[in-house]
Amino acid sequence: MIKNKTIISVPGFLANGISVGIKKSNQKDLGLIYSTIPAKVAAVFTKNTFKAAPLLINEERVKKGMAQTIVTNSGCANAATGREGYRDALIISDALSKQLKIREELILLGSTGVIGTRLPVKKIEGGIGKLVKGLSETGIEDAETAMMTTDKYPKIAIRKGVVGAKDVTICGIAKGAGMIEPNMATLLTYVMTDAFIDSKALNTVFHQAINSTFNSISIDGCMSTNDMAIILANGLARNNPLEKVQARLQRFRDMLTDVLMELSQAVVKDGEGATKFISITVKGAKSKSEARCAAYSIANSNLVKTAFFGEDPNWGRIIAALGASGVYMEKEKISLNIGNLPVFLQNSPVNINENKLKEVFQKDRIDVEVDLGAGDKSYYVYTSDLSYDYVKINAEYST
Amino acid sequence: MIKNKTIISVPGFLANGISVGIKKSNQKDLGLIYSTIPAKVAAVFTKNTFKAAPLLINEERVKKGMAQTIVTNSGCANAATGREGYRDALIISDALSKQLKIREELILLGSTGVIGTRLPVKKIEGGIGKLVKGLSETGIEDAETAMMTTDKYPKIAIRKGVVGAKDVTICGIAKGAGMIEPNMATLLTYVMTDAFIDSKALNTVFHQAINSTFNSISIDGCMSTNDMAIILANGLARNNPLEKVQARLQRFRDMLTDVLMELSQAVVKDGEGATKFISITVKGAKSKSEARCAAYSIANSNLVKTAFFGEDPNWGRIIAALGASGVYMEKEKISLNIGNLPVFLQNSPVNINENKLKEVFQKDRIDVEVDLGAGDKSYYVYTSDLSYDYVKINAEYST
Repeated sequence: MIKNKTIISVPGFLANGISVGIKKSNQKDLGLIYSTIPAKVAAVFTKNTFKAAPLLINEERVKKGMAQTIVTNSGCANAATGREGYRDALIISDALSKQLKIREELILLGSTGVIGTRLPVKKIEGGIGKLVKGLSETGIEDAETAMMTTDKYPKIAIRKGVVGAKDVTICGIAKGAGMIEPNMATLLTYVMTDAFIDSKALNTVFHQAINSTFNSISIDGCMSTNDMAIILANGLARNNPLEKVQARLQRFRDMLTDVLMELSQAVVKDGEGATKFISITVKGAKSKSEARCAAYSIANSNLVKTAFFGEDPNWGRIIAALGASGVYMEKEKISLNIGNLPVFLQNSPVNINENKLKEVFQKDRIDVEVDLGAGDKSYYVYTSDLSYDYVKINAEYST
Repeated sequence: MIKNKTIISVPGFLANGISVGIKKSNQKDLGLIYSTIPAKVAAVFTKNTFKAAPLLINEERVKKGMAQTIVTNSGCANAATGREGYRDALIISDALSKQLKIREELILLGSTGVIGTRLPVKKIEGGIGKLVKGLSETGIEDAETAMMTTDKYPKIAIRKGVVGAKDVTICGIAKGAGMIEPNMATLLTYVMTDAFIDSKALNTVFHQAINSTFNSISIDGCMSTNDMAIILANGLARNNPLEKVQARLQRFRDMLTDVLMELSQAVVKDGEGATKFISITVKGAKSKSEARCAAYSIANSNLVKTAFFGEDPNWGRIIAALGASGVYMEKEKISLNIGNLPVFLQNSPVNINENKLKEVFQKDRIDVEVDLGAGDKSYYVYTSDLSYDYVKINAEYST
């Protein structure tokens, strides 16, 4: 993912990732990112009713607008663990506060892994000294690795550019693989930047960037209990302030969106068992929410996903999934293109060259474009196919 | 499915099923059921926007309240085929009308198979003479076999009982396997009865019975273009008339529900790749629609379904799916039981005997019961697990 061996570091940020024995086989399972000074913070949390304990704590803490560190364990989600799980998370927070000598309210927490099991608090507490001692400017990749679960490769994206007359760096790390669906898309995404930015502006651009990236992907239509995206902005770039609507805020938002787009696409490509990257665009809808509904109806259809996995040009399943969405469309104006090949036009199939269509289905990336002929609103979703490996990975996950 | 070798026949009904070469390998692919006199009819159709051509024709014809025959082909859905597909279906209807010497408006049509390909009209037309000539009182099983696609076994249910002072027979046949989801559940179901029943009463009880059976199952959350359920009642039992709300209408509805329940459960058990039968009950909801939403959120979660397939007691995924539904619940009153074992109570996990829970997951049938603690409404859904075979069957279906 990282081209030309860019050095992965952000001014004023330290990070580390170690193994404390939560996962089997000595894999890294505890990560920390840390800003040397308190940073502005914005965050997006899952809408799941059963938010995991760390998210409940974070929700309160980010309201104050400042944070300095995020500690994350993999191997246990600390979700559906009730009051005891909440207390477990507070114990970790307390231990880290003492070790880093910062106020608890500046500490954010993340967990990912099996839902419904208690956090191995002793193991984590026991590792915090080592975790903090090992913090370094080049530790971001270790922190990322420590939050991987079924991910096959780490996901890191970085952009540097001039914003407000200074060099600004934005670096994001993400953990994905399963339970990927919008409404904060079932994963952990942390962004570090040295930009100097107003709290309100940070919150606005972060939500906008998340909506056009992570909230537009789906792997299995499952919304998790633990997903969140957090951005920390420590201001050390000392750029001209980013606030309200300005060209330089726009520039910052574009860079941020770029980072999140790269990460979100990496999450789809590394979806559990994924063998294809599928882009679904619905246009010509009466409203954006109808375009979105139609796009997800296609993206989340197991029959569509298995057809892509089988490289089987069974495009009728896309039409069936579209029709099942119930959104308004002008059937006589509708069109469906797959990889730029028109297959269904004005409510009738196009006389297709089967071999050409088969070739489209054999590619690693497949673009599906639907025009509903009913308006001018559109939406896109990125998704993956449904393979044997998805079933294998998830049938064997906790045991 | 049929106990004690019940003879599968209904007074006044003839049926047949033959091969006309739509499917490969000489399997039966064209079926006919026929009442010797015009029958009262009621029907439920898919809500998919892209209803298949035969359904568009049937919708008009059943409005008149009478029908006499249903001809069904497998191997091609005649859906997403536009005006040409509509004309193809009319050609079959016309040919059958001439052969049976009945008015076209008494003929109903069904198709199932690949979406988006044209009907092999010549093959079907060419077989109609033979199809009609072979009609017999014992032909129902052949008619059923002719509409199977990925079904592993035929689905027939029959009940006989005294209704309105006469022996009445109700026999249903169904074709299922994939694309199973409510809003007329992606399958074909035909019911034949000799009951004498008022048209309005027939319509009411049929809808009621479908709602509590076929509209409560899901295999993959996919709503097809071709699903419909039709009942023909020819009145030859000469029972006291069934109309309005009476004990005998209730008796008829119970028998009908029984037939449809047996068929719908058979469809779930024979779901594509299914290895488990899973019953999900949500109670304590504020409204029935919220109970339904929560039940389907669990039933359609790929992560829940793969956990069942893997016999992996990862109950946290059920909580995550429930939380993702967004329905109102009192978290402090909530409970989740699996196979009568409490696993989650009052927002906290129960200290579970892992081995006992593992045993529950190893059974062929698993009962999941959720109490939302928010009201007195409930809903149940029957579903299956998600296995390698589901992926295999659907990745290889059309090619």
